[in-house]
Amino acid sequence: MLEELKKEVYEANMLLPKYNLVTFTWGNVSAIDREKGLVVIKPSGVDYEKMSPEDMVVVDLDGNVVEGKYKPSSDTPTHVKLYRDFNSIGGIVHTHSRWATIFAQAGRDIKAYGTTQADYFYDEIPCTRDMTPQEININYEYNTGGVIVDTFKHINPSHVPGVLVKNHGPFTWGKDAMEAVHNAVVLEEVAMMAWNTEILTNKTIEAMPKELMNKHFMRKHGPNAYYGQ
Amino acid sequence: MLEELKKEVYEANMLLPKYNLVTFTWGNVSAIDREKGLVVIKPSGVDYEKMSPEDMVVVDLDGNVVEGKYKPSSDTPTHVKLYRDFNSIGGIVHTHSRWATIFAQAGRDIKAYGTTQADYFYDEIPCTRDMTPQEININYEYNTGGVIVDTFKHINPSHVPGVLVKNHGPFTWGKDAMEAVHNAVVLEEVAMMAWNTEILTNKTIEAMPKELMNKHFMRKHGPNAYYGQ
Amino acid sequence: MLEELKKEVYEANMLLPKYNLVTFTWGNVSAIDREKGLVVIKPSGVDYEKMSPEDMVVVDLDGNVVEGKYKPSSDTPTHVKLYRDFNSIGGIVHTHSRWATIFAQAGRDIKAYGTTQADYFYDEIPCTRDMTPQEININYEYNTGGVIVDTFKHINPSHVPGVLVKNHGPFTWGKDAMEAVHNAVVLEEVAMMAWNTEILTNKTIEAMPKELMNKHFMRKHGPNAYYGQ
Amino acid sequence: MLEELKKEVYEANMLLPKYNLVTFTWGNVSAIDREKGLVVIKPSGVDYEKMSPEDMVVVDLDGNVVEGKYKPSSDTPTHVKLYRDFNSIGGIVHTHSRWATIFAQAGRDIKAYGTTQADYFYDEIPCTRDMTPQEININYEYNTGGVIVDTFKHINPSHVPGVLVKNHGPFTWGKDAMEAVHNAVVLEEVAMMAWNTEILTNKTIEAMPKELMNKHFMRKHGPNAYYGQ
Repeated sequence: MLEELKKEVYEANMLLPKYNLVTFTWGNVSAIDREKGLVVIKPSGVDYEKMSPEDMVVVDLDGNVVEGKYKPSSDTPTHVKLYRDFNSIGGIVHTHSRWATIFAQAGRDIKAYGTTQADYFYDEIPCTRDMTPQEININYEYNTGGVIVDTFKHINPSHVPGVLVKNHGPFTWGKDAMEAVHNAVVLEEVAMMAWNTEILTNKTIEAMPKELMNKHFMRKHGPNAYYGQ
Repeated sequence: MLEELKKEVYEANMLLPKYNLVTFTWGNVSAIDREKGLVVIKPSGVDYEKMSPEDMVVVDLDGNVVEGKYKPSSDTPTHVKLYRDFNSIGGIVHTHSRWATIFAQAGRDIKAYGTTQADYFYDEIPCTRDMTPQEININYEYNTGGVIVDTFKHINPSHVPGVLVKNHGPFTWGKDAMEAVHNAVVLEEVAMMAWNTEILTNKTIEAMPKELMNKHFMRKHGPNAYYGQ
Repeated sequence: MLEELKKEVYEANMLLPKYNLVTFTWGNVSAIDREKGLVVIKPSGVDYEKMSPEDMVVVDLDGNVVEGKYKPSSDTPTHVKLYRDFNSIGGIVHTHSRWATIFAQAGRDIKAYGTTQADYFYDEIPCTRDMTPQEININYEYNTGGVIVDTFKHINPSHVPGVLVKNHGPFTWGKDAMEAVHNAVVLEEVAMMAWNTEILTNKTIEAMPKELMNKHFMRKHGPNAYYGQ
Repeated sequence: MLEELKKEVYEANMLLPKYNLVTFTWGNVSAIDREKGLVVIKPSGVDYEKMSPEDMVVVDLDGNVVEGKYKPSSDTPTHVKLYRDFNSIGGIVHTHSRWATIFAQAGRDIKAYGTTQADYFYDEIPCTRDMTPQEININYEYNTGGVIVDTFKHINPSHVPGVLVKNHGPFTWGKDAMEAVHNAVVLEEVAMMAWNTEILTNKTIEAMPKELMNKHFMRKHGPNAYYGQ
């Protein structure tokens, strides 16, 4: 079932080592078939070099396995929670990519310092709050999705397609698995540049001018978008 | 038309991923045929892996498409503005290469700290001023060229073949497309080294001695140039 | 003798350049056959490109060569000391990998700032004390093992599978040679991220919450482990 | 003439891009035949990809070309000066490798913080003084050799096989061209680690203990050397 989507999710997963976003098996991509309410996700602990499209696992929106010879990624409950609450998204990526994880470890949002970020993220990329001991001890992976959803109470996930989970690492999303991977690459890039911009200026740097941010996001994602570079 | 120049512009564009200056399609190279007054530029949003010489777009010095099955790069008005005002240049490169962009985000010139920079840039590499809301809202890409030209009011673009556009990224140029790419590589290299030189010295570092700067620039670019390394 | 183990140690050694952990021949991997009390280790000063499984050297737990056409790695006495004192380990890796060595040069433990570290190391990765002039002048390599063992007086080496030797570099270990290499890769990764986390926060950053650390280490290594990612 | 030495110098030059020490043609390697008093050096401005052993240029110890279809590297007078004054060396490398150049731009010696440095350099790697305007304006390249020789008035060039030329970049040397390249790689590695060690410790870090430095240098280069790793 869902052979087409499995192939897409497989290929999106294979882009993570290609773009140098993961070490070993630290990362996972999923995508959802909204009509059927089913999610296709990377199996748990399988090497990228040995993975094939048929190894992808199908789960429902309660996280129950519907098809698959392997266990789904241990992070499956986080993905499922996000699909339930963010109706506009079709694909999700989780990695421990270095620079994004550095901001997550520091508990810091990534402010918008330049047009590279504004081309993809409308304003800063938030970091979640600490999870409570209760949230950690029971249903940890599902609750990880919960603190992400909390963080986006006043943010449109289509305008800011990514988040840093505190002391952990980034999640990104998009209209499909490929766009979610694309945004994971951009997040890593802007995190690296934001880190170095802050240090260069002794952390006295302000966010970029609002007009410039609006212009860049809107010429690419707004109703009159014309940008392709 | 301009098949030779298209091939050259195509090859120059393909060097951007080779030299690790671009992610995805974030970058573009153009070149001008001064006699015909026509510019050849990368098409908008086409993957480097799928691009071929015939995909290059020909525009006139008002930015109108003269030939091409694709739209020209969205940054075309910036290129055109530079060709109009900088008569000595034959090729232009725009990227979001990391270290140059970090200085652009910080709104900082790159001072001359060593002979690597002085071999190619006579003194510091400037960063443009903020654009006004009006400049951003109407004819943004053309006005991006305008603030670059403003910045070079008292600088010879043949002596300083590159600039940082504030909160955005670098543009470089040269006598042709290949030299413009060459200068884009050098800019990224000297930006990386300048950043690390400043941090190592707690930003107490002074620019290099003038005599040494003169010697290096002039033995390579002066009337009695003898340097090739 | 021990042909199987030689092949494994050879392959583990070859992963060091693959994972970019070594320059030239700066690194070595060994493994122990606990029943026979024999250690297989990389030969001294042989290029990775020319090495083959038969070149591996067999030594006993006093460091005497039992079989091998080459001299064993000069660090053999350190490996032997660790096998004698840490009964649970089956493989050891030594490198001068950059980020781990930076912490070793600074004489600094690597605190636990995120789940990447907590997935493999239960709490911080310690740095050894200075060796005394006597320890340096006589039996230096064996005494290097000694200060590591001292450092783990109150730490379970199965919970913290690695250490930084002050002014020198990292040693990691595991149940076999492959796991020791795996942990060497993780150590380098978490060292890079810890460095950048500390600088981003002006070194005001605290270690991650204990509950989160426990959760991540235990869901992967505890009695009810369920994690594979 | 000197076909064997040309091949060796050619191969040593080709290692510079392999080890990521040079961009474009920024670097050169030479070697000397002490009996004949002749130096073989890279030609000026020839791409690494197009170079062959026959392109190497032979000069005498006054820098006059004895054989070669190309001009010798513009840095030839610096090499010649070093061969004249440092009798023990057989090969020289010059690059603008990033981390070594950063220290050169900062005008800073590289202190010995760890055994990686002590395995190759006995104590710190010095940075030269500023050159005078006269030294820059007349016979600049020869005088570059002169300030290096000045810097080693009280240092044995066999104990410290490299130097940073202020605001410029590193020179390294060795008993032959290959050893000089080897030392150039080590210098870049220890420069990167020294930079990060200093920043991690807010520049409060002291050099490594003398006993440890002696032990590492001497077990590899002393009269009773036994080290090969």
